Amino acid sequence: MTAQNTLIKDLEKLREQAPLIHNITNYVVMNPTANALLSIGASPVMAHEPREMEEMVSIASALVINIGTLSERWIEAMHIAGKAAKDKGKPIILDPVGAGATSLRTDTTKSLIEEVNPQIIRGNASEILAVAKAEMSTKGVDSTASADEATDVAKELAKNTKSVVSISGKTDYITDGNTLYKVENGHPLMGKITGTGCTASALTAAFSSVNTDYLVAATEAMQIMGIAGEIAAEESDAPGTFQTEFLDALYKINSDEIKNRIK
Amino acid sequence: MTAQNTLIKDLEKLREQAPLIHNITNYVVMNPTANALLSIGASPVMAHEPREMEEMVSIASALVINIGTLSERWIEAMHIAGKAAKDKGKPIILDPVGAGATSLRTDTTKSLIEEVNPQIIRGNASEILAVAKAEMSTKGVDSTASADEATDVAKELAKNTKSVVSISGKTDYITDGNTLYKVENGHPLMGKITGTGCTASALTAAFSSVNTDYLVAATEAMQIMGIAGEIAAEESDAPGTFQTEFLDALYKINSDEIKNRIK
Amino acid sequence: MTAQNTLIKDLEKLREQAPLIHNITNYVVMNPTANALLSIGASPVMAHEPREMEEMVSIASALVINIGTLSERWIEAMHIAGKAAKDKGKPIILDPVGAGATSLRTDTTKSLIEEVNPQIIRGNASEILAVAKAEMSTKGVDSTASADEATDVAKELAKNTKSVVSISGKTDYITDGNTLYKVENGHPLMGKITGTGCTASALTAAFSSVNTDYLVAATEAMQIMGIAGEIAAEESDAPGTFQTEFLDALYKINSDEIKNRIK
Repeated sequence: MTAQNTLIKDLEKLREQAPLIHNITNYVVMNPTANALLSIGASPVMAHEPREMEEMVSIASALVINIGTLSERWIEAMHIAGKAAKDKGKPIILDPVGAGATSLRTDTTKSLIEEVNPQIIRGNASEILAVAKAEMSTKGVDSTASADEATDVAKELAKNTKSVVSISGKTDYITDGNTLYKVENGHPLMGKITGTGCTASALTAAFSSVNTDYLVAATEAMQIMGIAGEIAAEESDAPGTFQTEFLDALYKINSDEIKNRIK
Repeated sequence: MTAQNTLIKDLEKLREQAPLIHNITNYVVMNPTANALLSIGASPVMAHEPREMEEMVSIASALVINIGTLSERWIEAMHIAGKAAKDKGKPIILDPVGAGATSLRTDTTKSLIEEVNPQIIRGNASEILAVAKAEMSTKGVDSTASADEATDVAKELAKNTKSVVSISGKTDYITDGNTLYKVENGHPLMGKITGTGCTASALTAAFSSVNTDYLVAATEAMQIMGIAGEIAAEESDAPGTFQTEFLDALYKINSDEIKNRIK
Repeated sequence: MTAQNTLIKDLEKLREQAPLIHNITNYVVMNPTANALLSIGASPVMAHEPREMEEMVSIASALVINIGTLSERWIEAMHIAGKAAKDKGKPIILDPVGAGATSLRTDTTKSLIEEVNPQIIRGNASEILAVAKAEMSTKGVDSTASADEATDVAKELAKNTKSVVSISGKTDYITDGNTLYKVENGHPLMGKITGTGCTASALTAAFSSVNTDYLVAATEAMQIMGIAGEIAAEESDAPGTFQTEFLDALYKINSDEIKNRIK
């Protein structure tokens, strides 16, 4: 498990450095994602026009590619931004929202993984399963049908893609193909507001800006998400107020809360 | 009037089934619409790329077409998704946001009604009036100038289009051309936050997924909206906190509240 | 300083007239911007399709052009809407979000200033500096390197463009090139939620609809923003709840609060 002291130190670093996170993300979650990044101490920018991708990536510390509301022009932007980030050695977090639901999403995810080599792929179990299936069949890996556990699939996907794979759920699993970290923090209300997963991807990018051990950075983001969710759930028992309390929790979260709550 | 027991039963069904609602909706309201659908117990998806419309519709239980922020490519997507939903017999809810304000909006509404045949058209009085005017002049119906009541126009529009027409306002009117239901629940603060009408359309789609009597489903959605508005207004007296309390109310609303508040 | 009585009178006028404000603004802030306009008493519309720009402008009282999430088609819409507003003598507020960060943003700002002649340019200090630099080098004005103060640059920019320039920050500065107004109201939490500046631009448009002395209108918007921020900060100490309290404050703000708090 990531030592809680590393998390405390990295959060402090994040708040000091306020890294600029470039998000190409879906329309639904742009506002809460930007607010979550501000609350944790990072600086958000949302931009998607292909013509400004290289310049924007060049001033950012990390790039989030979230395929939640795709269009042709945005897919183009994702590739341009992704290649620019890759060239400059900046961490890329890919969130394959809805992979498996339509072939456009699955195919876009696959081509992004191949051309852009994200440092971290972060999604829920069904998205990661869909990505793994598409990816592995391509590379001639044995069918995943026998792998009845998402974690096994995640490990195999991580090995094949050389990406850290982060799966959110009741328990979050984060793996680089060898080591597997689990995060048990969180609260069911997190699943009753839209964009919790997308926020997790953005925070993963924020932590990747201050800790280049991406397995650790991805884990830290899920820990902060889970702890903030628990704090918010002590103030609220329904999604509307929970959403505002969650942002408050991200903003106020401190070393003591991390120490007391981390599992 | 829709029996309150049907509403209670349909809400229960909705929460059990968590139907996937495909929204092609405007940028302004995507976030609160998704959150309202989650709060009431449905599953939202927002997608607009023409290339994934058929697949997305095929896994959804109902389709919302909301023309609030149009562009050429989105109009194309609305037609493709609408035709796919029509072919598969899935309910389509059309929200003609701003119809009458620009010819693009009026014309888009008209062509969608003609080609896609929405089960339900839901808007405010001025939008419905604009739609009726455009629609009826086309079909050679007598001028609506003499129909001095929105409800008369709504009835005529419903007959002409074979759609249920749902008008939101201080009193909501829902009609299939013959029967007219009224919903008296609600609160003025609902008009002080953006997207209340759009949320009503999304909830209309959610209820259409569990009750194929679309006149009843459309009425149920307005009842739930109105009751949640009343509950929220007991906790808040201004738009910011009202918005969060409204989501909480959608999430918590139960049989007793429905029985006590329904008018 | 703008007399507080003018502000009270103009706010009253705004609430009576509920002017329609046409926003071509970025995806991230569309929802809170629309809600802020509703809370203060204006009517928001967001529209960006070139084909409906002229009609939409013709029914609006003022136009906001905010370049926060650009694309080619939207730049086209900004020019069409801007020219229509110019022809009809309606106030245009330009918010050059991220000017200086990418050449697309700087160039778009420059060409909009030249072709559309906004009545008011509103941004933060670094954006205004970037605009001034681009604008002045073009017009052969002396390098701004020696102007070590944003206010000097703002004055020069205002003179060159014949626009009112409004700079937000701890202290807000508003100038027409001759007179310089300062607004000292506000709270640091305003910088911890996304879109505060964009909301300021929208409120600037709202006040421009009721007071054609744009130097005064721009100042009034910043005063209301600042006072609402102070009120919200008395109810909240973190961004999530602050955001909801800020909307509540815009909605409830009254003459007494203006008199007591204005600096």
